[in-house]
Amino acid sequence: MITISSVREMQGVARAYRRRGERIGFVPTMGALHEGHLSLVRRTKALSDVCVVSIFVNPTQFGQEEDYARYPRDLERDRQRCAQEEVDVVFAPQAVEIYPPGHSVFVGENDLSRVLCGAVRPGHFQGVLTVVAVLLNAVLPDVLLLGQKDAQQALLVQRMVRDLCFPVQVVVGQTVRENDGLAMSSRNAYLTGEERKRAPCLYAALQEVERMYGEGERDARLLAEAAEAHIRAALAPVRFAIDFITVVDPATLRPLSEVRGTALVALAVTIGAARLIDNTILPPGGELVT
Amino acid sequence: MITISSVREMQGVARAYRRRGERIGFVPTMGALHEGHLSLVRRTKALSDVCVVSIFVNPTQFGQEEDYARYPRDLERDRQRCAQEEVDVVFAPQAVEIYPPGHSVFVGENDLSRVLCGAVRPGHFQGVLTVVAVLLNAVLPDVLLLGQKDAQQALLVQRMVRDLCFPVQVVVGQTVRENDGLAMSSRNAYLTGEERKRAPCLYAALQEVERMYGEGERDARLLAEAAEAHIRAALAPVRFAIDFITVVDPATLRPLSEVRGTALVALAVTIGAARLIDNTILPPGGELVT
Repeated sequence: MITISSVREMQGVARAYRRRGERIGFVPTMGALHEGHLSLVRRTKALSDVCVVSIFVNPTQFGQEEDYARYPRDLERDRQRCAQEEVDVVFAPQAVEIYPPGHSVFVGENDLSRVLCGAVRPGHFQGVLTVVAVLLNAVLPDVLLLGQKDAQQALLVQRMVRDLCFPVQVVVGQTVRENDGLAMSSRNAYLTGEERKRAPCLYAALQEVERMYGEGERDARLLAEAAEAHIRAALAPVRFAIDFITVVDPATLRPLSEVRGTALVALAVTIGAARLIDNTILPPGGELVT
Repeated sequence: MITISSVREMQGVARAYRRRGERIGFVPTMGALHEGHLSLVRRTKALSDVCVVSIFVNPTQFGQEEDYARYPRDLERDRQRCAQEEVDVVFAPQAVEIYPPGHSVFVGENDLSRVLCGAVRPGHFQGVLTVVAVLLNAVLPDVLLLGQKDAQQALLVQRMVRDLCFPVQVVVGQTVRENDGLAMSSRNAYLTGEERKRAPCLYAALQEVERMYGEGERDARLLAEAAEAHIRAALAPVRFAIDFITVVDPATLRPLSEVRGTALVALAVTIGAARLIDNTILPPGGELVT
């Protein structure tokens, strides 16, 4: 495994792989690697000849009041995990490499980025799309792996790849969960013991929605209200705030009143210091594709 | 020479060239090819193994009141010119190929795009950068050729290539002029006989600035005023409007008060129905690079 910090060197290595006819699989991360990331690495290795993992805590996708400074960073531990998974290249650039002095170009989006997390985190998805564009141009992958936990991000990156014609295939891997159902996230580390014990209610609420759907319920408002009631009851003793719990069309992210085809049930809830997101697709087991 | 209209096919052909180790040179155009474009084609052929010319009148870089509908289009004649120059691939996509229904992603810029032509053509450079990003991802070139006549566009594309790390080298070719000095432009076709006779005054004004600079004048205001006086006198009998005549730092496009290092003298003047631009670099013969 090699570790690369410069874009130019990364492009050179990527070009060398390509010249040898080797397919490059790419997992972009902000580090603090957990089983969710590693499941994407394993899936990448099944789809490509070489696996590149980027580790970059992207400043432009954090708002002023958000957790950029305290976001967990441990490059050495992340590199060890990558080595265990037989990753070929860790691409770990410094911020100045990705955002040179005087940088002024960005990738924006006018539709999907305005709703859900985009509505409460202005600029977030512009930061995400910009850094993913840079990373795609640095790593030159054939396959890009993203996690379904960040469903809106995955849909936006798919939209960017389509609209800007990036020559890469996007694959969305399923959310990996702790034994008690909590979606793996680097931000789970912000939870206190009591908060952590109660946080699985987010997934339990989504399972409740799946159960109701299984019994024939199609009213989006009733499904969302049931999830919200479940979460409010479970989190009552700790500090929490619900950003949204909503049932949307996964192609447009617009709210549905009735679930007919595929639906995305998405939620964002801040528990203590941790803003957590989770989602499920109806009918259960569906794939996230635009 | 082959003509390709689909992005996917273009990417396939580009990848095949790359697998054979052939360098791809790329000249993006809006068609209506003239000697300015063809000089870029010839330069490309000296820098690369294969030459791709795109022909696409990009709707998103035209304002509502601008000349998108009447912009000259003659694909057959353009293809003949490309064939004469031994171009390898003409990439001529339809608008729906570049902008699929529901497209919502764009490339924006926060600095260089706000001034000069960007100040009077809102959205223009966002349209330019977005289409160039798409074209780069479609053609996958090693070298990208741009013309100095569109100096601000060339600087913005260079900035995008740097900031988004597109793996391509940008080369800016010198402005090609008619015998009387008028910069070649597809929009010269909009000029009436009388306007066409007077239009070379734009270049004559730039030459006057070069002459004054050669005699030691360094005051940017005096240089710009001399150019403006020359143009106003020469165009007095026809309908015209001066958008700007300005002396700027070529790296930042910010106005200079005094010419010390390199300066870009840029002008935009509408003569009748034709909005024409031209520029020169001080000291004369300098290169346009960020």
